[in-house]
Amino acid sequence: MDTHALHQRIRTLRSQAKILSSSTIEQRNQLLLTIADGLVRDYQLIRSANELDVAQAVENGQKESLVKRLIFSEEKLAAVTLGLQQVAELKDPIGHVLERRLLDDGLLLEKVSFPIGVIGMIFEARPDALVQIVSLCLKSGNGIILKGGKEAQRTNTELVASIQRSCAGSALGDTWLLLVESHADVELMLGMEKEIDLLIPRGTNQFVRYVMDHTSIPVLGHADGICHLYIDEHADLAKAVEIAYDSKTQYPAACNAVETILVHQAVAAAFLPKLAKRLAQGHVVMHGDAAAQNLISCTPYQEGDWGMEYLALEVNIRVVDSLEQAIDHIETYGSHHTDAIVSEDEMAIRTFFLQVDSADVFANCSTRFSDGFRFGLGAEVGISTAKIHARGPVGLEGLMSSKYLLKGQGQVVGTYSGTEPKQFLHTELAKDGSSLAFGGER
Amino acid sequence: MDTHALHQRIRTLRSQAKILSSSTIEQRNQLLLTIADGLVRDYQLIRSANELDVAQAVENGQKESLVKRLIFSEEKLAAVTLGLQQVAELKDPIGHVLERRLLDDGLLLEKVSFPIGVIGMIFEARPDALVQIVSLCLKSGNGIILKGGKEAQRTNTELVASIQRSCAGSALGDTWLLLVESHADVELMLGMEKEIDLLIPRGTNQFVRYVMDHTSIPVLGHADGICHLYIDEHADLAKAVEIAYDSKTQYPAACNAVETILVHQAVAAAFLPKLAKRLAQGHVVMHGDAAAQNLISCTPYQEGDWGMEYLALEVNIRVVDSLEQAIDHIETYGSHHTDAIVSEDEMAIRTFFLQVDSADVFANCSTRFSDGFRFGLGAEVGISTAKIHARGPVGLEGLMSSKYLLKGQGQVVGTYSGTEPKQFLHTELAKDGSSLAFGGER
Repeated sequence: MDTHALHQRIRTLRSQAKILSSSTIEQRNQLLLTIADGLVRDYQLIRSANELDVAQAVENGQKESLVKRLIFSEEKLAAVTLGLQQVAELKDPIGHVLERRLLDDGLLLEKVSFPIGVIGMIFEARPDALVQIVSLCLKSGNGIILKGGKEAQRTNTELVASIQRSCAGSALGDTWLLLVESHADVELMLGMEKEIDLLIPRGTNQFVRYVMDHTSIPVLGHADGICHLYIDEHADLAKAVEIAYDSKTQYPAACNAVETILVHQAVAAAFLPKLAKRLAQGHVVMHGDAAAQNLISCTPYQEGDWGMEYLALEVNIRVVDSLEQAIDHIETYGSHHTDAIVSEDEMAIRTFFLQVDSADVFANCSTRFSDGFRFGLGAEVGISTAKIHARGPVGLEGLMSSKYLLKGQGQVVGTYSGTEPKQFLHTELAKDGSSLAFGGER
Repeated sequence: MDTHALHQRIRTLRSQAKILSSSTIEQRNQLLLTIADGLVRDYQLIRSANELDVAQAVENGQKESLVKRLIFSEEKLAAVTLGLQQVAELKDPIGHVLERRLLDDGLLLEKVSFPIGVIGMIFEARPDALVQIVSLCLKSGNGIILKGGKEAQRTNTELVASIQRSCAGSALGDTWLLLVESHADVELMLGMEKEIDLLIPRGTNQFVRYVMDHTSIPVLGHADGICHLYIDEHADLAKAVEIAYDSKTQYPAACNAVETILVHQAVAAAFLPKLAKRLAQGHVVMHGDAAAQNLISCTPYQEGDWGMEYLALEVNIRVVDSLEQAIDHIETYGSHHTDAIVSEDEMAIRTFFLQVDSADVFANCSTRFSDGFRFGLGAEVGISTAKIHARGPVGLEGLMSSKYLLKGQGQVVGTYSGTEPKQFLHTELAKDGSSLAFGGER
């Protein structure tokens, strides 16, 4: 698509997204279920396209992990259709009254949740991520521009064709979503700060970093996941061993897997041999600082290790003098994603909670809990390490913005200023009931 | 300050801001009152510095409006100290429990409000804005780097010296705020995306636009304020005239003053002569399209007028065919700041509320109500036209981020996955009471 055609198409998408955002929740939920049925009906088409993509990827010598993520198996179809049904069951995120205040008699202010507008999603090889993000955008009333990896191009085309057939038969139309395909389109998307309100990149760190560095559109996501586990001097060491083992081995390629374990010197001699034994069962390679090397056999620490995101069965071990040194280490080398303390000392936990400046700060549990599903958000767009807008695992709420609505009876500001200004009431009202925008009357 | 020294200083500022964010609300409120007392005590020093700045500005031939904003009179001192007292009375924004969910027995999740971290404020000639933003940052536990305009340099230096003297005597210290002075420091600030979490520029449109275009740090604010007033076919025309008059003339230099009045063709003949008569009393120059020119005497519309932010006693008049055309005009030419409808038709109001995509969408009242004080937010950082994070007038809430805190008893994710996964409870709990980070126990 050339720039002009793409701009035109996105203008259509934006106005169709407005219809989406004014639609009833029943219409959006019904369409979610229709899309699920459609994908089941069209599975053979999608499967055939996917087999071609997979064969091509194997032929091109792609990594096994990529090929695995690329395969759109019947299990993935089942997960995707279940996901659509679950999103249909979530509460409507549109039209929540976030503030309601009577400024004066007959002058009512509401802050109401509305969709952000147009979301741009750029993702690598996972076709199931496409369906997930489409479902969340539909539910939240946002238009969506999708750019998938070229490895999954045939699969994505069939998935979107199936979704659009389901949409075409509904009142909501099929122009609120758009699949773009060329690499040139990605560059166009990165420059469309007037057309796209939020970008969600999903893929490798390098890829997310590239997107963040090449656009002025707000980006929701995270590049690095350098997570820490600190074993305090007052830790229950048996718990600490199992938490460390789970945090590293339960799924080492995940962003919330631990990369560095910090151990208080007072418990290092008692803890590290137990830890080394347990991690050996998981075939984990340990990189230890000098103090750790004195207590266990491990690969000697090398310059730069503290900043590594291994995403593999490797972990750093550092012995620290104090809680403060642990917090300093996390501030210096961490990526503000997920960091955990193991301690039975409530004051140490509280200090850690207060002073560690990360999206997810945990005590006495695995870093792997950092996840939208485990957090009970229903569905996840991604995990944000930004401090603005959304932080941590992001569900539907992260796809919402708000508007202030003010309804009067002819009031003017002149009345409330000058030498004898009328005073505002500023009476806080209950937030229940329908918004002014949806026919709520008071 | 050279780059290295500035980085060092900001590192100190960031760690001091952590102490601020862990302090009690009593400590922060007490310091706000101490700062107010200090400014009164130091007023002669500040006044002398201010007189030199003002004399210099006059000598340099600065605009009268700038000189007026620059003067730090006793009235402004009184307003500033009252502001500090009012901020001290606002509720503590730190530590609010935004979500609380029991993931499983003994595994409690909280989403808790925490300060954003380090705010960078770049402002032009208003010294009172300096005190206001310092008070909001102190209350919300954020470190602050201030860069004022060179016209106010002597005044700002004395203001910050006074504030720092008050801080030095408190437990919170005086290193959480920093005044930088050279233009080179602004360029340094714009590049400090690792050190500064949020930039708040306050000044002319061109200035805000420059900041937005030259940094990858999130920016809170707005460049343009092209606000519209739409007079519907079912408008009460008497109300419409007064709302239009107030929206344009009550303070024409404000971002929320109306720039274009859209009039439904069905009421144009009845409305426009009344409007013209009233606006003439306010010496407002009207730029009318062809249809308006047929009904009233006005300056003919010229290409580009719809995109003008006059910030003066000038306004565009356009006759439209329908509500839809009005909404289209606002989407095409507006800046998503504040737009209002005048109508007695509830369905027209609802359509306007739903489909106009602006931070503030009003019905039957003046656009000039778009303001943090009038909205009852207590204090205002600025008005945001971003759709991410904060939108519309922004109070303390816009200076807050959040963390997810998770406290367990040794739980690992392995338990909740695999072939016989334990199910999560995901029980929603009441959000009242103290957070885990502040000693809340459940």
